[in-house]
Amino acid sequence: MAANLLRALEFCLILFTIASIGGTSHEEQARKITEEFSGFPAHSLHSHFTLSPSTASVDIEGLRRQIEELASFSDAPGPAVTRVLYSDKDVLARRYIKSLMVQAGLLVREDAIGNIYGRWDGSEADLPPVASGSHIDAIPYSGKYDGVIGVLGAIEAINVLKRSGFQPKRSLEVIMFTSEEPTRFGISCIGSRLLAGSEELADALKQVVDGQNISFFEAARSAGYPIHQEDLSSVFLKKESYHSFVELHIEQGPILEEEGIPIGIVTAIAAPASISVDFEGNGGHAGAVLMPARNDAGLAAAELALAVEKHVLESGCIDTVGTVGVIELHPGAINSIPSKAHIEIDTRDIDEQRRNAVINKIRLSAIRIAENRGVTLSKFKIVNQDPPALSSSSITATMQDAARQLNLHSKPMISRAYHDSLFMARISPMGMIFIPCYKGYSHKPEEFASVEEITNGVKVLALTLAKLSLE
Amino acid sequence: MAANLLRALEFCLILFTIASIGGTSHEEQARKITEEFSGFPAHSLHSHFTLSPSTASVDIEGLRRQIEELASFSDAPGPAVTRVLYSDKDVLARRYIKSLMVQAGLLVREDAIGNIYGRWDGSEADLPPVASGSHIDAIPYSGKYDGVIGVLGAIEAINVLKRSGFQPKRSLEVIMFTSEEPTRFGISCIGSRLLAGSEELADALKQVVDGQNISFFEAARSAGYPIHQEDLSSVFLKKESYHSFVELHIEQGPILEEEGIPIGIVTAIAAPASISVDFEGNGGHAGAVLMPARNDAGLAAAELALAVEKHVLESGCIDTVGTVGVIELHPGAINSIPSKAHIEIDTRDIDEQRRNAVINKIRLSAIRIAENRGVTLSKFKIVNQDPPALSSSSITATMQDAARQLNLHSKPMISRAYHDSLFMARISPMGMIFIPCYKGYSHKPEEFASVEEITNGVKVLALTLAKLSLE
Repeated sequence: MAANLLRALEFCLILFTIASIGGTSHEEQARKITEEFSGFPAHSLHSHFTLSPSTASVDIEGLRRQIEELASFSDAPGPAVTRVLYSDKDVLARRYIKSLMVQAGLLVREDAIGNIYGRWDGSEADLPPVASGSHIDAIPYSGKYDGVIGVLGAIEAINVLKRSGFQPKRSLEVIMFTSEEPTRFGISCIGSRLLAGSEELADALKQVVDGQNISFFEAARSAGYPIHQEDLSSVFLKKESYHSFVELHIEQGPILEEEGIPIGIVTAIAAPASISVDFEGNGGHAGAVLMPARNDAGLAAAELALAVEKHVLESGCIDTVGTVGVIELHPGAINSIPSKAHIEIDTRDIDEQRRNAVINKIRLSAIRIAENRGVTLSKFKIVNQDPPALSSSSITATMQDAARQLNLHSKPMISRAYHDSLFMARISPMGMIFIPCYKGYSHKPEEFASVEEITNGVKVLALTLAKLSLE
Repeated sequence: MAANLLRALEFCLILFTIASIGGTSHEEQARKITEEFSGFPAHSLHSHFTLSPSTASVDIEGLRRQIEELASFSDAPGPAVTRVLYSDKDVLARRYIKSLMVQAGLLVREDAIGNIYGRWDGSEADLPPVASGSHIDAIPYSGKYDGVIGVLGAIEAINVLKRSGFQPKRSLEVIMFTSEEPTRFGISCIGSRLLAGSEELADALKQVVDGQNISFFEAARSAGYPIHQEDLSSVFLKKESYHSFVELHIEQGPILEEEGIPIGIVTAIAAPASISVDFEGNGGHAGAVLMPARNDAGLAAAELALAVEKHVLESGCIDTVGTVGVIELHPGAINSIPSKAHIEIDTRDIDEQRRNAVINKIRLSAIRIAENRGVTLSKFKIVNQDPPALSSSSITATMQDAARQLNLHSKPMISRAYHDSLFMARISPMGMIFIPCYKGYSHKPEEFASVEEITNGVKVLALTLAKLSLE
């Protein structure tokens, strides 16, 4: 049933797409269909392109406008962006991305959980294609660039190539991944992880609920993806599905900006792990229960948060990081001793063993703190514990060549944030292009990359995709 | 305008009350009027009383039913109770209390912020009356007995005296105070504090908003109290308004239960203070910002929470307590370094100086933690810092006499929780009667006092009120 609906949607998208490719009269037709399909006036989209080599440049004004338009689909007031998986704003933003893909002449399809694919057929369309993409979901009160640059930038890279008269040999594909951020269900990279064939995730999705006790499947249904548990494996892709995958992203760190280097060539992605912990005590009245009689779940959480920092610093390596981003106390009243505390821990390293040693120390601390305070450690769950990923040396070399040909200085670097590329690396050779961002800020409203920085990134991406397409 | 409305309401209540006092035909009339007034079927109220001495006992079955009925006005599923100031459930519960007062033959009036008074005129009605009462608001996910016993128990004590044929000399008055709990506006004992003439509170109420940015006055209006800023002083009472005030309450501590003593005679109420603290840092991405570059507002909050515990324990006295019941992180996402942290601290002692020394240490810790972590201490606000209160030795003696006459063992003790009595002590001689509660539990659903324990408390209260009335 769900599969039929998706096939029907796919068929419509194919029709729209076919109609949108071609000369000027077809362009007008495409504009109208795009308006119907997207629900947005096409004049606000990037609609003026030709295929002549004279326009082989980045439409930076169009791209800047798209970034602002996409940021307006937000549950937080601007400049902050909040766009959570399968929320109304997420659905609107997805429709916007599909309309841009259609407008770029791509053949658009969606899989069962809403990974969106836009394909430009190459002259040898039977060969595994070259793909690029990222995500557009945004954690609460974050910024406009994280992920977004990798989706809008990839679509614009396609436009650049089309305007330049380039004809790909291998097909080129833009992918918008579902829910890179773990905001709603506590699981990161749902789209790319499932696409890369994670049976573990397919199992986990059958159990998870969000903070309002809404299951993954209910949430998906409300966003127009009426999937069933057994449909999840339809998202899996085979290992040979892609020739290569390249993701453009803001650095989310300060190195490129500080060193004045426009392009980062990612050689490895740090290994992330996330942990969910619950403590439970007896609670009670803040005035009446004397200190020796207490077993305060909130203080256990506070101690564990500081223990996370201590164990990370003990690693002695700058590459080890750990964060407690969530502490929730129950009942959360000033005159009540917390009877429950929930904390969420994120820890990463480029060295998997070193990171796992930190996780083990955190676990031992949680047990010791619970014992000392007489509280129950009712949950210590490692939600995910992924290995790090290495970029393909061949793609790294191609990206470096592209930067050199464009007279852009580049620098090999490690991605300390993780990305959909971490999971795409499981089924395809992978590479990432970083551009500088203001003070290295990310996950907050001050996140910013200039039009020049974005232009550089899109050019390197376009040339890299072109080179890979001809391999 | 508001004053006129209140006067009109008062007049109606007087009419209802007059109608409800008297013989059997009047009782039927009272029942009908009570139903109209309260919106509840009167058969579920305590409606079968006579004034003969043979029934001079506590209607414990009726009282137990009232406790359950009152608990059903809750925004949390039972057995938990959530009843927040001026919420719909609070309004329903207030109506229920007024109907019980009317049913008990009391003359009911409300002041501008919803303190509810029910009076039984004495034979010398010009003398300052004797009052008893407590509150019925409940913090999130708390229990059925805190405050409730002191309101329902006082009404039942009046019924006991009426059934016994007692005729008071001084009038007896039951008071239900507005918002003893600080849940909605972060201020405790709004009703009793204002009634006791706090100009400081009257000023503060002009500024405060709740978590949804609703002002105190908007909230009051939505509950049917259309007050204006200038009306607040109408709530103030003069110092000689009452001859004495006695509050019945569960102990909220384990001492009486552990020692098998049915009645606690409160000699002093510990001095409470509450503090609101905000830290602010730069936030950022949990993977990309390296540890030395962080200024984590969440870890500052965790450190301060542990510092509160440390400074309280350093006092070396069992009577000093301190609690962090609220920690809120922003943006509250697993992969984002907290850029803001809000914590709320409650600290109390029977020794005001010792408590203030703890507050001072907490303040110094907050400053030091902010410096060390490079975060901003954007708020350190002492929301209230009240002095402790001593019971009147004369009332204490009267309560002890009453317990002795009823063959109930009693024990002098300190109230570590604070109560409306703390503020009534500012304008009236004050005393408190404690009864045991299960394991000393309070502010959680497991809160419990048996019918025998409640019966004992109501009897001692009734006899104490009778004695004080004749002074």
